[in-house]
Amino acid sequence: MVPTVLPPILDLAGTAVFALTGALLAARLRQTFVTMAFFALITGVGGGSLRDMLIGTPAFWTHNPWVAPVIFATALIAWFTPRRWWEGELLEWADAAGLAAFAVLGTAKAMAFGVAPIPAMVMGVITGCAGGVIRDVIAGEPSIIMRPELYVTAAALAAAVTVLGSALALPDALVWSAAWLAGFVLRGAAIRWK
Amino acid sequence: MVPTVLPPILDLAGTAVFALTGALLAARLRQTFVTMAFFALITGVGGGSLRDMLIGTPAFWTHNPWVAPVIFATALIAWFTPRRWWEGELLEWADAAGLAAFAVLGTAKAMAFGVAPIPAMVMGVITGCAGGVIRDVIAGEPSIIMRPELYVTAAALAAAVTVLGSALALPDALVWSAAWLAGFVLRGAAIRWK
Amino acid sequence: MVPTVLPPILDLAGTAVFALTGALLAARLRQTFVTMAFFALITGVGGGSLRDMLIGTPAFWTHNPWVAPVIFATALIAWFTPRRWWEGELLEWADAAGLAAFAVLGTAKAMAFGVAPIPAMVMGVITGCAGGVIRDVIAGEPSIIMRPELYVTAAALAAAVTVLGSALALPDALVWSAAWLAGFVLRGAAIRWK
Repeated sequence: MVPTVLPPILDLAGTAVFALTGALLAARLRQTFVTMAFFALITGVGGGSLRDMLIGTPAFWTHNPWVAPVIFATALIAWFTPRRWWEGELLEWADAAGLAAFAVLGTAKAMAFGVAPIPAMVMGVITGCAGGVIRDVIAGEPSIIMRPELYVTAAALAAAVTVLGSALALPDALVWSAAWLAGFVLRGAAIRWK
Repeated sequence: MVPTVLPPILDLAGTAVFALTGALLAARLRQTFVTMAFFALITGVGGGSLRDMLIGTPAFWTHNPWVAPVIFATALIAWFTPRRWWEGELLEWADAAGLAAFAVLGTAKAMAFGVAPIPAMVMGVITGCAGGVIRDVIAGEPSIIMRPELYVTAAALAAAVTVLGSALALPDALVWSAAWLAGFVLRGAAIRWK
Repeated sequence: MVPTVLPPILDLAGTAVFALTGALLAARLRQTFVTMAFFALITGVGGGSLRDMLIGTPAFWTHNPWVAPVIFATALIAWFTPRRWWEGELLEWADAAGLAAFAVLGTAKAMAFGVAPIPAMVMGVITGCAGGVIRDVIAGEPSIIMRPELYVTAAALAAAVTVLGSALALPDALVWSAAWLAGFVLRGAAIRWK
Protein backbone atom coordinates (compact mmCIF):
# COMPACT_ATOMS: atom_id res chain seq x y z
CA MET A 1 0.00 0.00 0.00
CA VAL A 2 2.96 2.33 0.45
CA PRO A 3 3.44 4.27 -2.80
CA THR A 4 6.81 3.41 -4.35
CA VAL A 5 7.86 7.06 -4.40
CA LEU A 6 7.68 6.96 -0.61
CA PRO A 7 9.94 4.04 0.33
CA PRO A 8 9.06 2.51 3.72
CA ILE A 9 12.13 4.14 5.24
CA LEU A 10 10.77 7.62 4.46
CA ASP A 11 7.38 6.65 5.88
CA LEU A 12 9.06 5.49 9.09
CA ALA A 13 11.11 8.70 9.15
CA GLY A 14 7.89 10.72 9.00
CA THR A 15 6.41 8.68 11.84
CA ALA A 16 9.57 9.25 13.90
CA VAL A 17 9.46 13.02 13.35
CA PHE A 18 5.83 13.26 14.44
CA ALA A 19 6.56 10.95 17.39
CA LEU A 20 9.40 13.26 18.40
CA THR A 21 7.10 16.30 18.47
CA GLY A 22 4.77 14.37 20.77
CA ALA A 23 7.57 13.24 23.08
CA LEU A 24 8.96 16.77 23.27
CA LEU A 25 5.56 18.22 24.20
CA ALA A 26 5.35 15.70 27.06
CA ALA A 27 8.93 16.58 28.07
CA ARG A 28 8.05 20.30 28.18
CA LEU A 29 5.12 19.44 30.45
CA ARG A 30 7.61 17.57 32.73
CA GLN A 31 6.02 14.16 32.27
CA THR A 32 7.38 10.65 32.95
CA PHE A 33 8.93 8.44 30.29
CA VAL A 34 5.78 6.36 29.88
CA THR A 35 3.69 9.45 29.19
CA MET A 36 6.33 10.62 26.71
CA ALA A 37 6.07 7.28 24.91
CA PHE A 38 2.27 7.56 24.94
CA PHE A 39 2.41 11.03 23.34
CA ALA A 40 5.03 9.85 20.84
CA LEU A 41 2.67 7.05 19.86
CA ILE A 42 -0.53 9.06 19.45
CA THR A 43 1.26 11.80 17.52
CA GLY A 44 3.18 9.37 15.32
CA VAL A 45 0.34 7.05 14.38
CA GLY A 46 -2.79 9.13 15.17
CA GLY A 47 -3.37 10.54 11.70
CA GLY A 48 -2.76 7.33 9.80
CA SER A 49 -4.82 5.33 12.29
CA LEU A 50 -7.82 7.64 11.92
CA ARG A 51 -7.52 7.40 8.12
CA ASP A 52 -7.42 3.61 8.29
CA MET A 53 -10.40 3.39 10.67
CA LEU A 54 -12.41 5.71 8.39
CA ILE A 55 -11.69 3.74 5.21
CA GLY A 56 -12.36 0.50 7.08
CA THR A 57 -9.00 -1.28 7.25
CA PRO A 58 -6.88 -2.25 10.28
CA ALA A 59 -4.49 0.50 11.40
CA PHE A 60 -1.24 0.33 9.40
CA TRP A 61 0.95 -0.17 12.48
CA THR A 62 -0.92 -3.20 13.85
CA HIS A 63 0.59 -5.48 11.22
CA ASN A 64 3.88 -3.65 10.68
CA PRO A 65 6.56 -4.86 13.13
CA TRP A 66 8.67 -1.67 12.75
CA VAL A 67 6.37 1.26 13.49
CA ALA A 68 5.88 0.77 17.24
CA PRO A 69 9.58 0.03 17.95
CA VAL A 70 10.63 3.13 15.97
CA ILE A 71 8.24 5.21 18.06
CA PHE A 72 9.55 3.85 21.36
CA ALA A 73 13.13 4.35 20.18
CA THR A 74 12.22 7.96 19.39
CA ALA A 75 10.79 8.41 22.88
CA LEU A 76 13.99 6.95 24.36
CA ILE A 77 16.12 9.36 22.33
CA ALA A 78 13.94 12.28 23.46
CA TRP A 79 14.28 11.10 27.07
CA PHE A 80 18.06 10.76 27.07
CA THR A 81 19.03 13.85 25.09
CA PRO A 82 18.89 17.50 26.18
CA ARG A 83 15.74 19.26 24.97
CA ARG A 84 17.63 22.14 23.40
CA TRP A 85 19.00 19.75 20.77
CA TRP A 86 15.52 19.52 19.33
CA GLU A 87 13.89 22.85 19.84
CA GLY A 88 15.46 24.82 16.99
CA GLU A 89 14.07 25.27 13.52
CA LEU A 90 15.35 21.84 12.49
CA LEU A 91 12.38 20.13 14.11
CA GLU A 92 9.95 22.46 12.35
CA TRP A 93 11.50 21.67 8.98
CA ALA A 94 11.45 17.95 9.67
CA ASP A 95 7.80 18.28 10.68
CA ALA A 96 7.09 20.08 7.39
CA ALA A 97 8.68 17.22 5.46
CA GLY A 98 6.63 14.67 7.41
CA LEU A 99 3.42 16.63 6.99
CA ALA A 100 3.77 16.76 3.20
CA ALA A 101 4.78 13.10 2.97
CA PHE A 102 1.85 11.91 5.09
CA ALA A 103 -0.62 14.06 3.12
CA VAL A 104 0.55 12.46 -0.16
CA LEU A 105 0.67 8.96 1.30
CA GLY A 106 -2.76 9.27 2.95
CA THR A 107 -4.40 10.52 -0.23
CA ALA A 108 -2.82 7.79 -2.35
CA LYS A 109 -3.84 5.04 0.11
CA ALA A 110 -7.44 6.31 0.22
CA MET A 111 -7.63 6.36 -3.60
CA ALA A 112 -6.23 2.82 -3.67
CA PHE A 113 -9.17 1.81 -1.44
CA GLY A 114 -11.68 3.29 -3.90
CA VAL A 115 -12.39 6.49 -1.98
CA ALA A 116 -13.78 9.30 -4.21
CA PRO A 117 -11.37 12.19 -5.06
CA ILE A 118 -12.59 14.86 -2.62
CA PRO A 119 -12.90 12.48 0.35
CA ALA A 120 -9.46 11.10 -0.59
CA MET A 121 -8.03 14.62 -0.28
CA VAL A 122 -9.65 14.88 3.13
CA MET A 123 -7.99 11.60 4.10
CA GLY A 124 -4.62 13.06 3.10
CA VAL A 125 -5.19 16.10 5.30
CA ILE A 126 -6.31 13.86 8.18
CA THR A 127 -3.22 11.64 7.81
CA GLY A 128 -0.98 14.69 7.99
CA CYS A 129 -2.73 16.71 10.68
CA ALA A 130 -4.82 14.51 12.98
CA GLY A 131 -1.91 13.15 15.03
CA GLY A 132 -0.91 16.68 16.06
CA VAL A 133 -4.52 17.65 16.80
CA ILE A 134 -5.04 14.61 19.07
CA ARG A 135 -1.70 15.32 20.80
CA ASP A 136 -2.74 18.92 21.55
CA VAL A 137 -6.27 18.03 22.65
CA ILE A 138 -5.07 15.39 25.15
CA ALA A 139 -2.35 17.67 26.49
CA GLY A 140 -4.86 20.52 26.85
CA GLU A 141 -2.76 22.76 24.57
CA PRO A 142 -4.22 25.12 21.93
CA SER A 143 -4.55 22.91 18.86
CA ILE A 144 -2.24 23.49 15.88
CA ILE A 145 -5.24 23.99 13.61
CA MET A 146 -6.37 26.96 15.73
CA ARG A 147 -3.11 28.84 15.10
CA PRO A 148 -3.10 31.37 12.26
CA GLU A 149 -0.19 29.76 10.37
CA LEU A 150 -0.50 27.80 7.15
CA TYR A 151 -0.46 24.19 8.32
CA VAL A 152 -3.65 22.43 7.29
CA THR A 153 -3.45 24.41 4.05
CA ALA A 154 -0.05 22.95 3.20
CA ALA A 155 -1.38 19.43 3.74
CA ALA A 156 -4.44 20.26 1.62
CA LEU A 157 -2.23 21.51 -1.21
CA ALA A 158 -0.15 18.32 -1.23
CA ALA A 159 -3.34 16.23 -1.19
CA ALA A 160 -4.95 18.29 -3.98
CA VAL A 161 -1.92 17.92 -6.26
CA THR A 162 -1.95 14.15 -5.62
CA VAL A 163 -5.62 13.88 -6.63
CA LEU A 164 -5.21 16.18 -9.63
CA GLY A 165 -2.18 14.34 -10.96
CA SER A 166 -4.01 11.04 -10.59
CA ALA A 167 -7.05 12.45 -12.43
CA LEU A 168 -4.74 13.51 -15.28
CA ALA A 169 -3.25 9.98 -15.30
CA LEU A 170 0.30 11.29 -14.87
CA PRO A 171 2.98 8.85 -13.63
CA ASP A 172 2.73 8.24 -9.88
CA ALA A 173 6.38 8.99 -9.09
CA LEU A 174 6.11 12.38 -10.78
CA VAL A 175 2.78 13.27 -9.16
CA TRP A 176 3.85 12.24 -5.69
CA SER A 177 7.17 14.08 -5.91
CA ALA A 178 5.46 17.27 -7.14
CA ALA A 179 2.73 16.99 -4.50
CA TRP A 180 5.22 16.48 -1.70
CA LEU A 181 7.31 19.41 -2.93
CA ALA A 182 4.28 21.73 -3.16
CA GLY A 183 3.18 20.95 0.39
CA PHE A 184 6.71 21.18 1.78
CA VAL A 185 7.46 24.53 0.09
CA LEU A 186 4.17 26.08 1.26
CA ARG A 187 4.70 24.92 4.85
CA GLY A 188 8.35 25.98 4.63
CA ALA A 189 7.31 29.47 3.52
CA ALA A 190 5.03 29.67 6.57
CA ILE A 191 7.94 28.67 8.85
CA ARG A 192 10.36 31.09 7.17
CA TRP A 193 8.14 34.19 7.08
CA LYS A 194 5.73 33.63 9.93
CA MET B 1 -28.55 2.00 3.89
CA VAL B 2 -30.41 5.31 4.12
CA PRO B 3 -33.94 4.61 5.39
CA THR B 4 -36.49 5.53 2.74
CA VAL B 5 -38.28 7.93 5.08
CA LEU B 6 -35.09 9.96 5.12
CA PRO B 7 -34.42 10.62 1.43
CA PRO B 8 -30.73 11.28 0.70
CA ILE B 9 -31.51 14.97 0.24
CA LEU B 10 -32.68 15.25 3.87
CA ASP B 11 -29.60 13.38 5.04
CA LEU B 12 -27.37 15.83 3.15
CA ALA B 13 -29.40 18.73 4.57
CA GLY B 14 -28.69 17.45 8.09
CA THR B 15 -24.99 17.16 7.30
CA ALA B 16 -25.00 20.73 5.95
CA VAL B 17 -26.69 22.10 9.08
CA PHE B 18 -24.16 20.46 11.37
CA ALA B 19 -21.33 21.58 9.09
CA LEU B 20 -22.65 25.13 9.34
CA THR B 21 -22.54 25.07 13.15
CA GLY B 22 -18.90 23.94 12.95
CA ALA B 23 -17.98 26.64 10.43
CA LEU B 24 -19.70 29.33 12.50
CA LEU B 25 -17.82 28.29 15.64
CA ALA B 26 -14.55 28.65 13.73
CA ALA B 27 -15.72 32.02 12.40
CA ARG B 28 -16.49 33.23 15.92
CA LEU B 29 -12.96 32.22 16.94
CA ARG B 30 -11.65 34.33 13.98
CA GLN B 31 -10.11 31.42 12.11
CA THR B 32 -8.98 31.07 8.49
CA PHE B 33 -11.12 29.51 5.77
CA VAL B 34 -9.23 26.22 5.90
CA THR B 35 -9.88 25.87 9.62
CA MET B 36 -13.55 26.72 9.02
CA ALA B 37 -13.72 23.93 6.45
CA PHE B 38 -12.00 21.56 8.88
CA PHE B 39 -14.55 22.32 11.61
CA ALA B 40 -17.42 22.07 9.12
CA LEU B 41 -16.14 18.61 8.19
CA ILE B 42 -15.64 17.21 11.67
CA THR B 43 -19.00 18.52 12.87
CA GLY B 44 -20.85 17.37 9.75
CA VAL B 45 -19.47 13.86 9.52
CA GLY B 46 -18.06 13.23 13.02
CA GLY B 47 -21.08 11.45 14.49
CA GLY B 48 -21.81 9.26 11.49
CA SER B 49 -18.13 8.41 11.07
CA LEU B 50 -17.80 7.29 14.69
CA ARG B 51 -20.95 5.15 14.30
CA ASP B 52 -19.54 3.55 11.14
CA MET B 53 -16.14 2.87 12.72
CA LEU B 54 -17.82 1.28 15.75
CA ILE B 55 -20.07 -1.01 13.70
CA GLY B 56 -17.12 -1.88 11.47
CA THR B 57 -17.96 -0.39 8.08
CA PRO B 58 -16.17 2.34 6.06
CA ALA B 59 -17.35 5.87 6.96
CA PHE B 60 -20.43 6.77 4.90
CA TRP B 61 -18.79 9.78 3.24
CA THR B 62 -15.75 7.93 1.87
CA HIS B 63 -17.83 6.33 -0.87
CA ASN B 64 -20.47 9.05 -1.30
CA PRO B 65 -19.33 11.68 -3.81
CA TRP B 66 -21.74 14.36 -2.46
CA VAL B 67 -21.06 14.64 1.26
CA ALA B 68 -17.62 16.28 1.18
CA PRO B 69 -18.55 18.81 -1.56
CA VAL B 70 -21.71 19.79 0.35
CA ILE B 71 -19.59 20.40 3.44
CA PHE B 72 -17.07 22.56 1.60
CA ALA B 73 -19.91 24.50 -0.07
CA THR B 74 -21.36 25.11 3.40
CA ALA B 75 -18.00 26.40 4.61
CA LEU B 76 -17.80 28.71 1.58
CA ILE B 77 -21.29 30.06 2.30
CA ALA B 78 -20.36 30.65 5.94
CA TRP B 79 -17.18 32.41 4.82
CA PHE B 80 -18.85 34.79 2.35
CA THR B 81 -21.98 35.71 4.30
CA PRO B 82 -22.28 37.94 7.39
CA ARG B 83 -22.38 35.98 10.61
CA ARG B 84 -25.56 37.66 11.88
CA TRP B 85 -27.51 35.90 9.09
CA TRP B 86 -26.94 32.66 10.91
CA GLU B 87 -26.90 33.41 14.58
CA GLY B 88 -30.63 33.71 15.27
CA GLU B 89 -32.94 30.96 16.39
CA LEU B 90 -33.20 29.61 12.84
CA LEU B 91 -29.90 27.80 13.19
CA GLU B 92 -30.96 26.24 16.48
CA TRP B 93 -34.17 24.93 14.92
CA ALA B 94 -32.30 23.57 11.92
CA ASP B 95 -29.86 21.89 14.31
CA ALA B 96 -32.82 20.34 16.17
CA ALA B 97 -34.16 18.93 12.89
CA GLY B 98 -30.74 17.52 12.01
CA LEU B 99 -30.21 16.06 15.48
CA ALA B 100 -33.50 14.13 15.36
CA ALA B 101 -32.93 12.96 11.78
CA PHE B 102 -29.40 11.71 12.54
CA ALA B 103 -30.57 9.92 15.70
CA VAL B 104 -33.22 8.02 13.70
CA LEU B 105 -30.89 7.31 10.79
CA GLY B 106 -28.03 6.17 13.03
CA THR B 107 -30.27 3.79 14.99
CA ALA B 108 -31.79 2.33 11.81
CA LYS B 109 -28.38 1.82 10.20
CA ALA B 110 -27.01 0.09 13.31
CA MET B 111 -30.03 -2.26 13.44
CA ALA B 112 -29.54 -3.03 9.75
CA PHE B 113 -25.98 -4.14 10.64
CA GLY B 114 -27.31 -6.54 13.27
CA VAL B 115 -26.51 -4.41 16.32
CA ALA B 116 -28.63 -5.32 19.38
CA PRO B 117 -31.44 -2.87 20.33
CA ILE B 118 -29.82 -0.99 23.22
CA PRO B 119 -26.43 -0.59 21.51
CA ALA B 120 -28.35 0.50 18.38
CA MET B 121 -30.01 3.28 20.41
CA VAL B 122 -26.56 4.32 21.59
CA MET B 123 -25.43 4.45 17.95
CA GLY B 124 -28.33 6.80 17.19
CA VAL B 125 -27.32 9.12 20.01
CA ILE B 126 -23.69 9.02 18.86
CA THR B 127 -24.69 9.80 15.26
CA GLY B 128 -26.65 12.83 16.45
CA CYS B 129 -24.34 14.18 19.14
CA ALA B 130 -20.74 13.10 18.57
CA GLY B 131 -19.98 15.60 15.79
CA GLY B 132 -20.82 18.50 18.08
CA VAL B 133 -18.85 17.00 20.97
CA ILE B 134 -15.73 16.56 18.81
CA ARG B 135 -16.14 20.13 17.47
CA ASP B 136 -16.28 21.55 21.02
CA VAL B 137 -13.40 19.44 22.33
CA ILE B 138 -11.03 20.46 19.51
CA ALA B 139 -12.03 24.13 19.80
CA GLY B 140 -11.54 24.00 23.58
CA GLU B 141 -15.16 25.11 24.19
CA PRO B 142 -17.41 23.67 26.93
CA SER B 143 -18.97 20.64 25.28
CA ILE B 144 -22.67 20.70 24.42
CA ILE B 145 -23.27 17.62 26.55
CA MET B 146 -22.05 19.50 29.64
CA ARG B 147 -24.77 22.16 29.27
CA PRO B 148 -27.94 21.68 31.31
CA GLU B 149 -30.29 21.76 28.29
CA LEU B 150 -32.08 18.76 26.85
CA TYR B 151 -29.91 17.79 23.90
CA VAL B 152 -28.61 14.25 24.30
CA THR B 153 -32.03 13.40 25.78
CA ALA B 154 -33.83 14.49 22.60
CA ALA B 155 -31.55 12.27 20.51
CA ALA B 156 -32.09 9.40 22.95
CA LEU B 157 -35.88 9.79 22.67
CA ALA B 158 -35.79 9.66 18.86
CA ALA B 159 -33.51 6.61 19.01
CA ALA B 160 -35.71 4.87 21.60
CA VAL B 161 -38.86 5.37 19.53
CA THR B 162 -37.04 3.96 16.49
CA VAL B 163 -36.02 0.82 18.38
CA LEU B 164 -39.43 0.42 20.01
CA GLY B 165 -41.34 0.77 16.73
CA SER B 166 -39.03 -1.77 15.12
CA ALA B 167 -39.56 -4.21 18.01
CA LEU B 168 -43.33 -3.84 17.51
CA ALA B 169 -42.85 -4.51 13.77
CA LEU B 170 -44.63 -1.30 12.80
CA PRO B 171 -44.07 0.05 9.27
CA ASP B 172 -40.68 1.80 8.94
CA ALA B 173 -42.05 5.02 7.44
CA LEU B 174 -44.46 5.45 10.34
CA VAL B 175 -41.86 4.62 13.00
CA TRP B 176 -39.19 6.89 11.58
CA SER B 177 -41.60 9.80 11.15
CA ALA B 178 -42.87 9.45 14.71
CA ALA B 179 -39.35 9.05 16.09
CA TRP B 180 -38.08 12.10 14.24
CA LEU B 181 -41.07 14.13 15.41
CA ALA B 182 -40.62 13.07 19.05
CA GLY B 183 -36.96 14.05 19.07
CA PHE B 184 -37.57 17.32 17.23
CA VAL B 185 -40.44 18.38 19.52
CA LEU B 186 -38.46 17.62 22.68
CA ARG B 187 -35.42 19.52 21.47
CA GLY B 188 -37.70 22.31 20.22
CA ALA B 189 -39.31 22.61 23.64
CA ALA B 190 -35.83 22.96 25.16
CA ILE B 191 -35.02 25.75 22.68
CA ARG B 192 -38.37 27.50 23.22
CA TRP B 193 -38.47 27.43 27.03
CA LYS B 194 -34.83 27.22 28.02
CA MET C 1 -12.57 -13.81 21.99
CA VAL C 2 -12.67 -13.38 25.75
CA PRO C 3 -9.70 -15.29 27.23
CA THR C 4 -10.96 -18.10 29.45
CA VAL C 5 -9.02 -16.80 32.43
CA LEU C 6 -11.21 -13.72 32.27
CA PRO C 7 -14.75 -15.10 32.39
CA PRO C 8 -17.32 -12.74 30.80
CA ILE C 9 -18.59 -11.82 34.25
CA LEU C 10 -15.18 -10.35 35.19
CA ASP C 11 -15.05 -8.49 31.89
CA LEU C 12 -18.48 -7.01 32.60
CA ALA C 13 -17.37 -6.15 36.14
CA GLY C 14 -14.42 -4.23 34.72
CA THR C 15 -16.71 -2.36 32.34
CA ALA C 16 -19.03 -1.50 35.25
CA VAL C 17 -16.15 -0.16 37.37
CA PHE C 18 -14.93 2.09 34.59
CA ALA C 19 -18.50 3.17 33.84
CA LEU C 20 -18.89 4.08 37.50
CA THR C 21 -15.83 6.35 37.43
CA GLY C 22 -17.34 8.14 34.41
CA ALA C 23 -20.75 8.53 36.05
CA LEU C 24 -19.16 9.85 39.25
CA LEU C 25 -17.15 12.44 37.35
CA ALA C 26 -20.38 13.68 35.73
CA ALA C 27 -22.06 13.69 39.16
CA ARG C 28 -19.25 15.80 40.61
CA LEU C 29 -19.75 18.27 37.75
CA ARG C 30 -23.49 18.40 38.69
CA GLN C 31 -24.74 16.97 35.42
CA THR C 32 -28.11 15.44 34.46
CA PHE C 33 -28.75 11.70 34.39
CA VAL C 34 -28.40 11.50 30.61
CA THR C 35 -24.97 13.07 30.74
CA MET C 36 -24.01 10.68 33.54
CA ALA C 37 -25.05 7.77 31.36
CA PHE C 38 -23.09 9.23 28.44
CA PHE C 39 -19.93 9.48 30.57
CA ALA C 40 -20.49 6.01 31.99
CA LEU C 41 -20.67 4.71 28.42
CA ILE C 42 -17.58 6.42 27.02
CA THR C 43 -15.49 5.50 30.05
CA GLY C 44 -16.75 1.91 30.15
CA VAL C 45 -16.39 1.05 26.47
CA GLY C 46 -13.99 3.74 25.18
CA GLY C 47 -10.76 1.77 25.49
CA GLY C 48 -12.09 -1.50 24.10
CA SER C 49 -13.87 0.31 21.27
CA LEU C 50 -10.71 2.11 20.19
CA ARG C 51 -8.80 -1.20 20.28
CA ASP C 52 -11.46 -2.86 18.13
CA MET C 53 -11.57 0.01 15.61
CA LEU C 54 -7.77 -0.08 15.32
CA ILE C 55 -7.58 -3.83 14.74
CA GLY C 56 -10.49 -3.59 12.28
CA THR C 57 -13.34 -5.45 13.98
CA PRO C 58 -16.77 -4.16 15.17
CA ALA C 59 -16.71 -2.77 18.71
CA PHE C 60 -17.21 -5.59 21.25
CA TRP C 61 -20.37 -4.07 22.74
CA THR C 62 -22.30 -3.73 19.46
CA HIS C 63 -23.00 -7.46 19.33
CA ASN C 64 -23.02 -8.18 23.06
CA PRO C 65 -26.51 -7.68 24.54
CA TRP C 66 -25.18 -7.24 28.11
CA VAL C 67 -22.59 -4.47 27.98
CA ALA C 68 -24.85 -1.47 27.32
CA PRO C 69 -27.50 -2.52 29.90
CA VAL C 70 -24.79 -3.03 32.53
CA ILE C 71 -23.51 0.46 31.84
CA PHE C 72 -26.93 2.06 32.14
CA ALA C 73 -27.61 0.11 35.34
CA THR C 74 -24.33 1.44 36.71
CA ALA C 75 -25.37 4.99 35.83
CA LEU C 76 -28.72 4.43 37.58
CA ILE C 77 -26.95 3.15 40.70
CA ALA C 78 -24.63 6.18 40.67
CA TRP C 79 -27.67 8.47 40.26
CA PHE C 80 -29.69 7.01 43.13
CA THR C 81 -26.94 6.50 45.71
CA PRO C 82 -25.07 9.14 47.73
CA ARG C 83 -21.74 10.06 46.23
CA ARG C 84 -19.77 9.49 49.42
CA TRP C 85 -20.50 5.74 49.09
CA TRP C 86 -18.18 5.68 46.12
CA GLU C 87 -15.47 8.19 46.77
CA GLY C 88 -13.27 6.25 49.16
CA GLU C 89 -10.31 4.10 48.27
CA LEU C 90 -12.59 1.22 47.29
CA LEU C 91 -13.26 2.78 43.89
CA GLU C 92 -9.54 3.25 43.27
CA TRP C 93 -8.83 -0.39 44.05
CA ALA C 94 -11.69 -1.55 41.83
CA ASP C 95 -10.33 0.69 39.06
CA ALA C 96 -6.89 -0.90 39.53
CA ALA C 97 -8.42 -4.36 39.13
CA GLY C 98 -10.29 -3.25 35.98
CA LEU C 99 -7.21 -1.57 34.53
CA ALA C 100 -5.09 -4.72 34.87
CA ALA C 101 -7.86 -6.97 33.53
CA PHE C 102 -8.48 -4.77 30.48
CA ALA C 103 -4.76 -4.54 29.73
CA VAL C 104 -4.46 -8.34 29.70
CA LEU C 105 -7.69 -8.84 27.76
CA GLY C 106 -6.82 -6.17 25.18
CA THR C 107 -3.36 -7.61 24.57
CA ALA C 108 -4.70 -11.16 24.23
CA LYS C 109 -7.46 -10.08 21.81
CA ALA C 110 -4.99 -8.16 19.64
CA MET C 111 -2.64 -11.18 19.48
CA ALA C 112 -5.61 -13.38 18.55
CA PHE C 113 -6.18 -11.01 15.58
CA GLY C 114 -2.60 -11.47 14.41
CA VAL C 115 -1.24 -8.16 15.72
CA ALA C 116 2.56 -8.19 16.23
CA PRO C 117 3.84 -8.38 19.86
CA ILE C 118 4.78 -4.72 20.47
CA PRO C 119 1.62 -3.29 18.81
CA ALA C 120 -0.37 -5.89 20.80
CA MET C 121 1.09 -4.50 24.03
CA VAL C 122 0.07 -1.03 22.90
CA MET C 123 -3.46 -2.35 22.32
CA GLY C 124 -3.53 -3.63 25.89
CA VAL C 125 -2.50 -0.23 27.23
CA ILE C 126 -5.13 1.46 25.03
CA THR C 127 -7.83 -0.94 26.23
CA GLY C 128 -7.00 -0.14 29.84
CA CYS C 129 -6.37 3.60 29.63
CA ALA C 130 -8.19 5.16 26.65
CA GLY C 131 -11.65 5.20 28.24
CA GLY C 132 -10.38 7.34 31.11
CA VAL C 133 -8.46 9.63 28.78
CA ILE C 134 -11.56 10.24 26.59
CA ARG C 135 -13.65 10.83 29.73
CA ASP C 136 -11.22 13.48 31.00
CA VAL C 137 -10.79 15.19 27.62
CA ILE C 138 -14.56 15.58 27.08
CA ALA C 139 -15.10 16.79 30.64
CA GLY C 140 -12.23 19.27 30.28
CA GLU C 141 -10.39 17.75 33.27
CA PRO C 142 -6.62 17.19 33.43
CA SER C 143 -6.16 13.76 31.85
CA ILE C 144 -5.13 10.84 34.04
CA ILE C 145 -2.07 10.25 31.88
CA MET C 146 -0.78 13.74 32.73
CA ARG C 147 -0.72 12.97 36.47
CA PRO C 148 2.62 11.82 37.92
CA GLU C 149 1.26 8.53 39.34
CA LEU C 150 1.97 5.10 37.89
CA TYR C 151 -1.12 4.36 35.83
CA VAL C 152 -0.18 3.81 32.19
CA THR C 153 2.93 2.02 33.50
CA ALA C 154 0.82 -0.52 35.39
CA ALA C 155 -1.19 -1.27 32.26
CA ALA C 156 2.04 -1.55 30.26
CA LEU C 157 3.46 -4.04 32.75
CA ALA C 158 0.37 -6.27 32.56
CA ALA C 159 0.47 -6.10 28.76
CA ALA C 160 4.20 -6.86 28.64
CA VAL C 161 3.85 -9.93 30.86
CA THR C 162 1.00 -11.16 28.63
CA VAL C 163 3.14 -10.84 25.49
CA LEU C 164 6.21 -12.35 27.15
CA GLY C 165 4.31 -15.34 28.50
CA SER C 166 2.80 -15.95 25.10
CA ALA C 167 6.23 -15.74 23.44
CA LEU C 168 7.48 -18.37 25.92
CA ALA C 169 4.44 -20.54 25.07
CA LEU C 170 3.40 -20.78 28.71
CA PRO C 171 -0.20 -21.85 29.46
CA ASP C 172 -2.67 -18.99 28.92
CA ALA C 173 -4.36 -19.26 32.32
CA LEU C 174 -1.01 -18.96 34.09
CA VAL C 175 0.22 -16.08 31.92
CA TRP C 176 -2.99 -14.09 32.21
CA SER C 177 -3.20 -14.56 35.98
CA ALA C 178 0.42 -13.49 36.45
CA ALA C 179 0.01 -10.55 34.09
CA TRP C 180 -3.15 -9.35 35.84
CA LEU C 181 -1.47 -9.70 39.24
CA ALA C 182 1.65 -7.78 38.14
CA GLY C 183 -0.42 -4.86 36.81
CA PHE C 184 -2.74 -4.83 39.83
CA VAL C 185 0.11 -4.91 42.36
CA LEU C 186 2.02 -2.11 40.63
CA ARG C 187 -1.08 0.10 40.40
CA GLY C 188 -1.97 -0.83 43.98
CA ALA C 189 1.47 0.24 45.18
CA ALA C 190 0.93 3.59 43.48
CA ILE C 191 -2.43 3.99 45.26
CA ARG C 192 -1.01 2.90 48.62
CA TRP C 193 2.15 5.04 48.63
CA LYS C 194 1.28 7.95 46.38
